[in-house]
Amino acid sequence: MMKKHNIAVIVGSLRKESFNLKTAKTLMSLAPESLSMKLVSIAGLPWFNEDLEGSPPKEWVAFREQIRAADGFLFLTPEYNRSVPGVLKNAIDVGSRPYGENSWDGKPAGVVSVSIGNISGFGANHHLRQSLTFVNVPAMAQPEAYIGGAADLFDDNGQLTNDSTKDFLKSYMAAFAKWIATNTQS
Amino acid sequence: MMKKHNIAVIVGSLRKESFNLKTAKTLMSLAPESLSMKLVSIAGLPWFNEDLEGSPPKEWVAFREQIRAADGFLFLTPEYNRSVPGVLKNAIDVGSRPYGENSWDGKPAGVVSVSIGNISGFGANHHLRQSLTFVNVPAMAQPEAYIGGAADLFDDNGQLTNDSTKDFLKSYMAAFAKWIATNTQS
Amino acid sequence: MMKKHNIAVIVGSLRKESFNLKTAKTLMSLAPESLSMKLVSIAGLPWFNEDLEGSPPKEWVAFREQIRAADGFLFLTPEYNRSVPGVLKNAIDVGSRPYGENSWDGKPAGVVSVSIGNISGFGANHHLRQSLTFVNVPAMAQPEAYIGGAADLFDDNGQLTNDSTKDFLKSYMAAFAKWIATNTQS
Amino acid sequence: MMKKHNIAVIVGSLRKESFNLKTAKTLMSLAPESLSMKLVSIAGLPWFNEDLEGSPPKEWVAFREQIRAADGFLFLTPEYNRSVPGVLKNAIDVGSRPYGENSWDGKPAGVVSVSIGNISGFGANHHLRQSLTFVNVPAMAQPEAYIGGAADLFDDNGQLTNDSTKDFLKSYMAAFAKWIATNTQS
Repeated sequence: MMKKHNIAVIVGSLRKESFNLKTAKTLMSLAPESLSMKLVSIAGLPWFNEDLEGSPPKEWVAFREQIRAADGFLFLTPEYNRSVPGVLKNAIDVGSRPYGENSWDGKPAGVVSVSIGNISGFGANHHLRQSLTFVNVPAMAQPEAYIGGAADLFDDNGQLTNDSTKDFLKSYMAAFAKWIATNTQS
Repeated sequence: MMKKHNIAVIVGSLRKESFNLKTAKTLMSLAPESLSMKLVSIAGLPWFNEDLEGSPPKEWVAFREQIRAADGFLFLTPEYNRSVPGVLKNAIDVGSRPYGENSWDGKPAGVVSVSIGNISGFGANHHLRQSLTFVNVPAMAQPEAYIGGAADLFDDNGQLTNDSTKDFLKSYMAAFAKWIATNTQS
Repeated sequence: MMKKHNIAVIVGSLRKESFNLKTAKTLMSLAPESLSMKLVSIAGLPWFNEDLEGSPPKEWVAFREQIRAADGFLFLTPEYNRSVPGVLKNAIDVGSRPYGENSWDGKPAGVVSVSIGNISGFGANHHLRQSLTFVNVPAMAQPEAYIGGAADLFDDNGQLTNDSTKDFLKSYMAAFAKWIATNTQS
Repeated sequence: MMKKHNIAVIVGSLRKESFNLKTAKTLMSLAPESLSMKLVSIAGLPWFNEDLEGSPPKEWVAFREQIRAADGFLFLTPEYNRSVPGVLKNAIDVGSRPYGENSWDGKPAGVVSVSIGNISGFGANHHLRQSLTFVNVPAMAQPEAYIGGAADLFDDNGQLTNDSTKDFLKSYMAAFAKWIATNTQS
């Protein structure tokens, strides 16, 4: 039987009606059978502060355990001020520490940016990639995923109604599954 | 009498013994008389979440008021995972909102990165600059300020003991004061 | 009488029917009277190679003179592979040298990216800004200019036919003129 | 018998005594047996200009063939003005075209930046990574390679004399060989 890969899905927006969250759920529904996907929340993580590492907040500990338990990651990020939201960057920071115990280490990822505008979160997408290099998370190159005009893609129930976007997301997940399989071999 | 320019000094690290904080205090002590400099804390700001704007957290409101009261900004940032700390990015995000009420708008800034390593926070320095473009904060070009090897620059009382760094920081503040004066004329 | 500011307009594409060139010409036609704008070609500049500085190519010498003669710059760049075209980056490099004789030094600029796609040259726009920081060219923050869907903006004679884009470019030039005036005062 | 992987080594500096070239030769001498490494020159490539694609310069054609013949790439780049040299970016551009015939497509790479300064070419390193994402070249995450202070690393014959750098480069090549093997499986 084929090994399932556990993918932690990390959404950079805290909004209840977040288009990133809706896109995440769509991507999860389109995942090939080789992937077992689970949302991991970044809400409520205290700010990273090295002074706290002697007795780390329980939210940090729990988050790090979830990251360590995953075989790979799928990031969805909005763009705030031409970069990733602070709350998402903090999650990267918390997961990368304490020094010498980087929970992200060596696991592959995909990066999807979702935005209501044309530029489609490009700035956030590539700033996140720069951080992933450091925490040793190889990010899939192509297909890149820039989802723009997100306000017009979903119905009132959060269902994706745009067919060409759906086709793209499906092909994205197929490529992502291959990327994960290639880069998680022992 | 010369008009004083009020500069909000924003430090991206929460550590008590932060080298960024020590550098900030040194820069404040070296400021020309045309500048009135004040530390503005970013600790304790709840994560930005647009859903909260209907009744924004009092910490957001207070932070936005401090930003609006300033004529310009001096940012000091460590590098976490090749970018700015999440907590600093969140402060940028909080100050830029709600939509249409960007508190940073049109005020000039300086960007200083401080690190214990050789690369001197370059990744954080330039990611921050990309965000500042969007919030309409013209960042001084030269002199750039990359302070590396920070663990060897201060004594036990947090006093800068390296003379060449002190000379550089002094010349930096002179150029910064000129940048502020040029870009805050009515 | 108001002093005119001389602006060197630098276009990053070599194509004869370049949308960047068409946008440049449109911007020049919309310039306020305070600006005197002139195209400066980057075609034909030999690759930068420090070994040649002992007897620099005449094209380098001529380009550097044109840059030194300007009071400011307006850059138009397409995006090639998520960054600036090599030919534009080479022009930056040639103008910045020889060591100690940076022809760009201290002159303000605007950055406009033009593309046929949605992302509107964002990657090129911000990579160029990072280089401009180093050569001490303060780049205007807002309005940013990302011109997407460029294939639909011009008629067969290269005339801009899209009214909202024209309005934007006009307001861009007004802000640019102010940026130049502010940052070129003696 | 183990399959050899052909690696095209691409050096971003044209200087005869380039520290990037010296580092490239050192890395080639330290390569594991699984890699067959060859320098591919980027000198003399005419500037990319889409108008020329109807009858492309023979240098473009030859370069594209060399890129297509490789299984992967090792890039060495200096930093010019906080980014990659124009000549290196042009090589990326030439290899990525004509539209639909990207010669880089799907082949893994390593990125090494070499500089005489402390910052060690960080800006060039990550700008190059952003372009590699688009041309679908998965770049190894860790170990990152930032070689600073390069003027003190080599003797008059171009031999690396610094032992800790040599140890690092050796471990880099071991990781690189593994990265190539993982990402070139059929």
